[in-house]
Amino acid sequence: MENRARVLIDCKDAKGLVYKISKVFYDRDLNIDNNREFVDKEHGRFFMRTVVSGLFDTQELLTELKMITPEDAHIRVIEPKDKKIILMATKESHALGDILIRHADGELGAQIECVIANHDTLKELVERFDIPFFHIPAEDLSREEHERKVMECIDQYTFDYIVLAKYMRILTPVFVKAYAQKIINIHHSFLPAFIGANPYKQAFDRGVKIIGATAHFVTNDLDAGPIIAQDVIPVNHRFSWKDMQRAGRDGEKIVLSRALALVLHDRVFVNGNKTVIF
Amino acid sequence: MENRARVLIDCKDAKGLVYKISKVFYDRDLNIDNNREFVDKEHGRFFMRTVVSGLFDTQELLTELKMITPEDAHIRVIEPKDKKIILMATKESHALGDILIRHADGELGAQIECVIANHDTLKELVERFDIPFFHIPAEDLSREEHERKVMECIDQYTFDYIVLAKYMRILTPVFVKAYAQKIINIHHSFLPAFIGANPYKQAFDRGVKIIGATAHFVTNDLDAGPIIAQDVIPVNHRFSWKDMQRAGRDGEKIVLSRALALVLHDRVFVNGNKTVIF
Amino acid sequence: MENRARVLIDCKDAKGLVYKISKVFYDRDLNIDNNREFVDKEHGRFFMRTVVSGLFDTQELLTELKMITPEDAHIRVIEPKDKKIILMATKESHALGDILIRHADGELGAQIECVIANHDTLKELVERFDIPFFHIPAEDLSREEHERKVMECIDQYTFDYIVLAKYMRILTPVFVKAYAQKIINIHHSFLPAFIGANPYKQAFDRGVKIIGATAHFVTNDLDAGPIIAQDVIPVNHRFSWKDMQRAGRDGEKIVLSRALALVLHDRVFVNGNKTVIF
Amino acid sequence: MENRARVLIDCKDAKGLVYKISKVFYDRDLNIDNNREFVDKEHGRFFMRTVVSGLFDTQELLTELKMITPEDAHIRVIEPKDKKIILMATKESHALGDILIRHADGELGAQIECVIANHDTLKELVERFDIPFFHIPAEDLSREEHERKVMECIDQYTFDYIVLAKYMRILTPVFVKAYAQKIINIHHSFLPAFIGANPYKQAFDRGVKIIGATAHFVTNDLDAGPIIAQDVIPVNHRFSWKDMQRAGRDGEKIVLSRALALVLHDRVFVNGNKTVIF
Repeated sequence: MENRARVLIDCKDAKGLVYKISKVFYDRDLNIDNNREFVDKEHGRFFMRTVVSGLFDTQELLTELKMITPEDAHIRVIEPKDKKIILMATKESHALGDILIRHADGELGAQIECVIANHDTLKELVERFDIPFFHIPAEDLSREEHERKVMECIDQYTFDYIVLAKYMRILTPVFVKAYAQKIINIHHSFLPAFIGANPYKQAFDRGVKIIGATAHFVTNDLDAGPIIAQDVIPVNHRFSWKDMQRAGRDGEKIVLSRALALVLHDRVFVNGNKTVIF
Repeated sequence: MENRARVLIDCKDAKGLVYKISKVFYDRDLNIDNNREFVDKEHGRFFMRTVVSGLFDTQELLTELKMITPEDAHIRVIEPKDKKIILMATKESHALGDILIRHADGELGAQIECVIANHDTLKELVERFDIPFFHIPAEDLSREEHERKVMECIDQYTFDYIVLAKYMRILTPVFVKAYAQKIINIHHSFLPAFIGANPYKQAFDRGVKIIGATAHFVTNDLDAGPIIAQDVIPVNHRFSWKDMQRAGRDGEKIVLSRALALVLHDRVFVNGNKTVIF
Repeated sequence: MENRARVLIDCKDAKGLVYKISKVFYDRDLNIDNNREFVDKEHGRFFMRTVVSGLFDTQELLTELKMITPEDAHIRVIEPKDKKIILMATKESHALGDILIRHADGELGAQIECVIANHDTLKELVERFDIPFFHIPAEDLSREEHERKVMECIDQYTFDYIVLAKYMRILTPVFVKAYAQKIINIHHSFLPAFIGANPYKQAFDRGVKIIGATAHFVTNDLDAGPIIAQDVIPVNHRFSWKDMQRAGRDGEKIVLSRALALVLHDRVFVNGNKTVIF
Repeated sequence: MENRARVLIDCKDAKGLVYKISKVFYDRDLNIDNNREFVDKEHGRFFMRTVVSGLFDTQELLTELKMITPEDAHIRVIEPKDKKIILMATKESHALGDILIRHADGELGAQIECVIANHDTLKELVERFDIPFFHIPAEDLSREEHERKVMECIDQYTFDYIVLAKYMRILTPVFVKAYAQKIINIHHSFLPAFIGANPYKQAFDRGVKIIGATAHFVTNDLDAGPIIAQDVIPVNHRFSWKDMQRAGRDGEKIVLSRALALVLHDRVFVNGNKTVIF
């Protein structure tokens, strides 16, 4: 049966990898619809993403690729189908709304399982789209207690990624570890400038002429995980910090949606604290 | 009673206009919260937008400003309240959806009266937001007949602007004249490049390295009305024209929403076939 | 005699300033060729830049403006003529070269008095343009001794601004104080990200997707003075830090030259640790 | 002897090309330092650029690659050394000056053989850099006569590319044909907007909010050759067309230099009327 898959390989670099891998595809008479590779010379790591089509069995292909790549190779053969995501938010609607519209349009490339928020502000909006909304307030709870409730909610679902669409609480190491490399955040500044709280106020106080937004994987270092996408918006002395916030929102939502599309299309490799994006 | 208004003046340029106008505000003890002016030297025209607050009667202020400005002066004293808009669309949801989300959030600065579309694709989305949706199909109708039906629908409402959120039909001079300077369109190219049909296909065929989007007032010259806002998105040889279209949508919706915000905040003067934007 | 000047006023905000100032111009029958003002509401400060032409005596105009503005007003009436600048550099030619070409073209709006460098790498280039080049090596000197020599060289000249065109040494408070608000620097990052040494290496290590450049006035806080202009350049995982440096140079030189043009045309007010730019 | 080369292949697409080509490199024990490929599906063409190092004979490598690629394959094995270029200009110094500074710095990656201009305005600047300057005035000559003189001058040199650094005359088909795919031009607009004379005036008259610059190969269709690089600069209603021209120059010179770097590093394939850029 005609098949199509994204083959993702990352491993330590070695001579002849492109040859050996493309030989596997050639011998099996597969079409290469798209192919990109990159060698991180600093760390001696090889990354390759190939879209192949033809007659193949996923498991057999995986086994064969394992045989001709270094032992440490991380190989994935992924069928291009919709992934499942969980959204988390607080009060602001722009980033969440952008994803909801794309979802309603069928453009997102993912099924939204549910939205979890620590306020109920967005309940009405989310329910307009017939998506389950869970309001898990944090009042009177310790950070750990609140997160435990959130995790209980999350763990009802199988999912590929958790998308923090302006979820304004800091996550504990327990949470981050539980969903390692699965949490995508949008930070409302051009990282690493203005880490932490209220970056627009920080940007205003510093008098910058450009503000930005950064989508990244969440790690235990606050706002310091691997960056997936960034964008910037020009500002000037006429902007109050509220104006910067308003203008910045457009950047935030576009950058988050762009990063999400890259991740959902399996275009992103995490490489230490960086990303390789094809 | 404490009042607040946007005073917009455009007239032929003359010596002392800033002085005379600011004297009116000063004599009435009004605060100037914001003030910008511009002289188009090529055509000898003066433009000024001032946000004033204090105790005043709108009509009296208007009369007094009339007295000290040239005869041709177009003066508006506008209270900053939500305007009313009508949206028109066809099948694509991104530009419309962006406006719907801002509207639901209370961020738009306008009340959406209804959405009119020549297809019913977007009906479900619009009705999720409890906004009237009118499907006026164009099949089996002449352009004039179809427009007459659209105009009948529009004319049930009082409104400030008609926003073409990817309405993919060309409007006749009759329609354009009926709502002169009230129709805002988003064109999916960096005008004046790629006027007309399928600009992404045109851009792809030309092999450009940057695509764009342009929000403009609609006039009878196709895609040639006064430009309000533009933005661009980098592309490369890997982009099919469908990829360009997909990437371009983000630019389209952001540019349209930005232009709409400018118009709704009375920041845009039409100056011949150009705009002055404060 | 027909005259033309840039009038720059900054003072604490008060009602009627625009009226009172424009009255002075009106009473003297001056033309306003360009006018912009701004009120920093956070600090209650008023900024205005007006280009006037007509028959006037600079000193009289100044006196009259003094009379109608708050006591703390800083008022300048500046004839639009070429300013004088001193350039400082180290080894890299791109930022310096960009200024030299503009100077040779007559486009710069300034006379370059001399170039001072702590290496002799750029001597040949500078002398091609018949501009005095002073090589003041820092080897075997304390920071203070070296700076003293640089200051001796500088103090031979009358000048308006010192432009650090990639001068790669940190200046002491003595130096900065001696030429307060007269030193313009280009920092090779999007400040406040990557303050200090080798920002491209820092940017590479952090895995950012956009790099930047920032022109600012120099104060005693390293890379923390008022920002005049910023720009950004997209990068990706294929960029080594040397590639980032190479790509970044284009941004650096353009941002520095743009900031310099703003300063030389008296378009920049320093407002605490920020700038107001008209 | 250890060798290093850029291998460029373009041919009609066929199954197994990546495999077959990488096999050649593998069998010869060459290192692949960098590799990129692209398939133009619309036209069924394959493009590949690989940087290889190791022990090889260029001619042998070429022969072997010929054997395993389609008959129409255009294969180049290029040693990475400085190319030779001829610059043509008219009166403006910015684009030319940018190249001269990079050349003086050793950063250009090319040897400038000479500068040819139809005015003598730039003579002094060019001679500061000890580069031959030929003033070939067009007055009293037919276009053909003038070009014949220019071509005589050009034909004294061996060179790789002719760079039109704001050469403001239209070239005849005879000239273009003589140096096919060797002439790079910078057009001072965001093509295909504003083809032809004085694009800044056209942009001003149209009231655009963004201006641009486009570097492209010259073909017989005016400003319609394959685009190599583009960039944009924001403008607003305050810009006269002279201001646009001034602001646009920064874009022009950066885009031309960027395109030139791409071409000189053999990163550009011409693909019909488009480019593929690695």
